[in-house]
Amino acid sequence: MVTSDTALPSWNNCASHTAIIEFVQRVTSDGGADYVPPARRIAVFDNDGTLWCEQPAYAQLMFIIDRVRELVRDRPELARQPVVEHLRSGDLAGALNHGVTAVTDVLLQSHAGLTAEEFADDARAWLLSARHPERSVAFGDLVYLPMLELLDFLRANGFRVFVVTGGGVEFVRATSEEVYGIPPDDVIGSSVGLTFERREGRVELVRQPVLRGSPNEGEPKALNIQAHIGRRPILAAGNSSGDQEMLEYVQSGMLPSLCLLVDHDDAEREYRYAGRAITNPDAEPVLNVAARSDWTVVSMKNDWARIFSDQQGMQ
Amino acid sequence: MVTSDTALPSWNNCASHTAIIEFVQRVTSDGGADYVPPARRIAVFDNDGTLWCEQPAYAQLMFIIDRVRELVRDRPELARQPVVEHLRSGDLAGALNHGVTAVTDVLLQSHAGLTAEEFADDARAWLLSARHPERSVAFGDLVYLPMLELLDFLRANGFRVFVVTGGGVEFVRATSEEVYGIPPDDVIGSSVGLTFERREGRVELVRQPVLRGSPNEGEPKALNIQAHIGRRPILAAGNSSGDQEMLEYVQSGMLPSLCLLVDHDDAEREYRYAGRAITNPDAEPVLNVAARSDWTVVSMKNDWARIFSDQQGMQ
Repeated sequence: MVTSDTALPSWNNCASHTAIIEFVQRVTSDGGADYVPPARRIAVFDNDGTLWCEQPAYAQLMFIIDRVRELVRDRPELARQPVVEHLRSGDLAGALNHGVTAVTDVLLQSHAGLTAEEFADDARAWLLSARHPERSVAFGDLVYLPMLELLDFLRANGFRVFVVTGGGVEFVRATSEEVYGIPPDDVIGSSVGLTFERREGRVELVRQPVLRGSPNEGEPKALNIQAHIGRRPILAAGNSSGDQEMLEYVQSGMLPSLCLLVDHDDAEREYRYAGRAITNPDAEPVLNVAARSDWTVVSMKNDWARIFSDQQGMQ
Repeated sequence: MVTSDTALPSWNNCASHTAIIEFVQRVTSDGGADYVPPARRIAVFDNDGTLWCEQPAYAQLMFIIDRVRELVRDRPELARQPVVEHLRSGDLAGALNHGVTAVTDVLLQSHAGLTAEEFADDARAWLLSARHPERSVAFGDLVYLPMLELLDFLRANGFRVFVVTGGGVEFVRATSEEVYGIPPDDVIGSSVGLTFERREGRVELVRQPVLRGSPNEGEPKALNIQAHIGRRPILAAGNSSGDQEMLEYVQSGMLPSLCLLVDHDDAEREYRYAGRAITNPDAEPVLNVAARSDWTVVSMKNDWARIFSDQQGMQ
């Protein structure tokens, strides 16, 4: 077992650190009033902005942009669509001026027709090779080290850890095992529709340019946790309004619970911004919700001694 | 590790037994041409008729009938619907004369309004107490012993084992851990819609009288495996036409695979019948498909020395 003395070395001695250690001790103390059996120790983590960096744009969006560039090389007429031209040139703000739906359409079209296995191979190859636009490191190196330590600490204490992402489930799964130690089936996310096709005697599941269900943000996060896991988690971590309902759901279970909200307040070592929901940009600021809900806010600036594995500590 | 000498004691020495042992040896022989790393050793099992008895009716249907009886006690006017009256009196054939849709509607209505957690508690209590109508044992005792041994044998050899049921996922999950050693999140099945509701400050997920997506039979089994697990399994077991597409999908992957089809040919110790698909009753008989697809047919009569744990061996 990882003890509280050695766990979480990249965390400063602070209130959120204490809250985590105390919570895990409470629910694992056999015979204690708040003991939770291992089968019920389920933790759910948002991905973008909670486990890894989501600025200046989601990794998946960068992946799509690279794919759009490839597609335009083969079919230059595609670039006649203004939204495609903006994406191809990396002008996200310009692309979004055409509306979220127009961007989403390109996103859904960009990998339609690939089999599930072809897409997984593509996503994996991209994630292992692509570099962050503002830092000369691979996207996989922009995982928050304190969060990796937290995942390990929880698992060492009998927790099962799931990723619950607003991003595409197949994209995050492509490297979840090596980046987070989380197998693909423990990733819940937004999905595209697939069709069952027989091609030369083989069954292939082929990506369609449509979402399967709603994007996994807001209420759907709670609903999809139930659909996939079948039990209410006791720990949840998020960073945006899109995580609010998931945290409310976890907090209002009958078992003890801990809700963590990552605050991006470190302009120097990461980025400074308020975590918003894509599907509900006008939601109440999530830090306000956290304050009145008694969630544990994790200040990246004050609580984390290191953020990425390639940075020096700032103590 | 469970060795092939001690594993599967309830299986006779027969072709299906040999096929299983040889397949597991092939894919676990490190350095061999057919070696499959543990992360890819995924096995999927249909539930009704593959892991436990589904005759004279699905356990879940018996559960619903008991629920309908309760509902009618509180609201006698419900019994004026002929399909409800047939169900209440246990006359399944009569109920089905009103069409599958009419029966499904009652099924969906019967637990609407319960929270996900209330439903799980109800299903669990029923499964632990209800008795099979033709055998004086609990439903949980009508699990096939040779299949339990197979699940253990696979897990001992690094496989992850999932249930992929046409039945309701929440129903099967209610006891999957204690009956099969399979945690709730490793059960994939048909789902009902849920709504996210705030009740007195708590978030509850509430069952609606509608299916979420298609019933998990036929092509949806393959599509839902991809949606949930994200990887193509290498071993699949089924017993009906509703499992055909799942087995085809598994068989046509790039890795070595084994497809098992349980043949209910033992009228004396279990039941003798052809496994059909509910959603496609006119499908080609699945034993014909098995023969031309080179699937491994498991004869309950000839291959299994014992079927249930309360029976004597028949060697």
